[in-house]
Amino acid sequence: MNILIIGGGGVVGQKLARKLTERGTLRGQAISKITLADVVDPAMIEGAPFAIETTTCDISDAASVAKTVTAETNVIYLLAAIVSAHAEQDFDAGYAINMMGTLNVLNRCRELGTKPVVVFTSSIAVYGGEVPDPIIDHTFLNPQTSYGAQKAIGELLINDFSRKGFVDGRGFRLPTISVRPGKPNRAASSFMSSILREPLNGQEAVCPVDDDYLHYYLSPRKCVENLIKGAEIPAEDLGMNRCMMMPGRMWSIRQLVDAMTAVAGPEPAKLIRWEAQPEIKEIVKGWRFDLRPEKAIKLGLTADESFEDNIRYYLEDDKPQA
Amino acid sequence: MNILIIGGGGVVGQKLARKLTERGTLRGQAISKITLADVVDPAMIEGAPFAIETTTCDISDAASVAKTVTAETNVIYLLAAIVSAHAEQDFDAGYAINMMGTLNVLNRCRELGTKPVVVFTSSIAVYGGEVPDPIIDHTFLNPQTSYGAQKAIGELLINDFSRKGFVDGRGFRLPTISVRPGKPNRAASSFMSSILREPLNGQEAVCPVDDDYLHYYLSPRKCVENLIKGAEIPAEDLGMNRCMMMPGRMWSIRQLVDAMTAVAGPEPAKLIRWEAQPEIKEIVKGWRFDLRPEKAIKLGLTADESFEDNIRYYLEDDKPQA
Repeated sequence: MNILIIGGGGVVGQKLARKLTERGTLRGQAISKITLADVVDPAMIEGAPFAIETTTCDISDAASVAKTVTAETNVIYLLAAIVSAHAEQDFDAGYAINMMGTLNVLNRCRELGTKPVVVFTSSIAVYGGEVPDPIIDHTFLNPQTSYGAQKAIGELLINDFSRKGFVDGRGFRLPTISVRPGKPNRAASSFMSSILREPLNGQEAVCPVDDDYLHYYLSPRKCVENLIKGAEIPAEDLGMNRCMMMPGRMWSIRQLVDAMTAVAGPEPAKLIRWEAQPEIKEIVKGWRFDLRPEKAIKLGLTADESFEDNIRYYLEDDKPQA
Repeated sequence: MNILIIGGGGVVGQKLARKLTERGTLRGQAISKITLADVVDPAMIEGAPFAIETTTCDISDAASVAKTVTAETNVIYLLAAIVSAHAEQDFDAGYAINMMGTLNVLNRCRELGTKPVVVFTSSIAVYGGEVPDPIIDHTFLNPQTSYGAQKAIGELLINDFSRKGFVDGRGFRLPTISVRPGKPNRAASSFMSSILREPLNGQEAVCPVDDDYLHYYLSPRKCVENLIKGAEIPAEDLGMNRCMMMPGRMWSIRQLVDAMTAVAGPEPAKLIRWEAQPEIKEIVKGWRFDLRPEKAIKLGLTADESFEDNIRYYLEDDKPQA
């Protein structure tokens, strides 16, 4: 089992590689190799009992993709993306990576004729507009950002290339990942982790929205578990649409902060500065939060039990040691 | 009002140009020029009181698009497409024209900065899979052909480029157009016109499906009326999704044939040969027919009153004179 993780330098890519290394198998077969590819050379995963390779790959460049995706690749995790606020600011980069990059990877698989499993990370940013709540499996995708549009296009490509037999694709609309470790990024949702992560690390953070803002969350730990299950779902169980919501849970900002206080005491919450940021509010106000991922749950994917779990996972897995 | 019809050599493009010529105005302004562009030089429309130009344009080539879409263009009808069975057979051509062609036109508008109205023809082939009937305005697009996938991608692009202010786009999911004049084409739906058109012209035709096959139809005359209305809908009435079903009506093949008999007598129906064609049946069996285009009806678009009207329109508008 030869696995390629495109976006292997990112938070989810690195965690996925570590979990797969721990596990040693995927789809019932021993892992022989994991390749981590990203636009800058990803961090190495140490101590694996099989080969781990790191490489640079620019998915907007078909020649770069051809070097990275080879006839030996059995499973591709396509996690690389220009994130939401970044894609909103840089229209060309968003289309080059999120749309053309996905197309390049799929076209390369078609050219090879090896029909690899492709696990694509879409986003709940595909939802928006006037569609009624709750969001169910058959709800119209009506993105209100370029990032969401590009992810919805990626889903259509995953489905069409799979229907034609070029890949065995499956896509998962990720909830907002929180608590996401590391530094803030250019996703409009970045604050949904930093208002917890920075205070848990003893640092100040800014919350740009009101505390009754509702959103839909999943921990990185559960996300990785779901991505592994997602690769293992038998193709015949996916039905006529291979893309679906990944389960998460709806919480208000207040509930996030209360969970942090319940797990880590009252001090961290005092480090949050509440400063409205109209540009962020404008993007996130259209995001949907009342989602019912029935299909994914039926297929065995799961959400966190409580947001206190998300806080504990951060402390166990990610909090920098002093 | 300077109008460009891309796909201006096709049946709908030619009829639209003639109707606009008759009308003389669009969006409340006098038409100053119509340009008909197509991959082969379109037929000229005679007798217009303003300039009509014909030109070749390959929308899969950005340089060709740049020559055709100019700063003077106020309204673009983007009708050009690789049709369903053709896109299923030639995967590359489908993506080159239906996806990249649409992107090239929209990118050219963005480059010009003139924000033209773009009327995009999508298709009811965007529907399919396990979504429940009836199809309503918020039904998930789940195409089961490459053509449908490419049209759904086109819709996402129309919406995103409009949201960013690069175009004033609107898209309409066309029902199957019947009775379509001219020759059979490579659409899997081609027989849905030829089983009427050829018999009305005194020729044999083959029906490849059973007579209880249900589908969703619109006459070319009503389609053109709707495309004109579609360009005239105020942008603010389109809401957060600028693409919608174009109204049509559901009929069985038997009802189509009976309508022909009611209008033209019993002889034409005798010219239909009933011969099942598995390849065509395979494509059309997944097409949806129970559609409820509420949004479009609210915005003033209309369907035919009866299929007998469709037959009459063919006889009045299109039947070749002996």
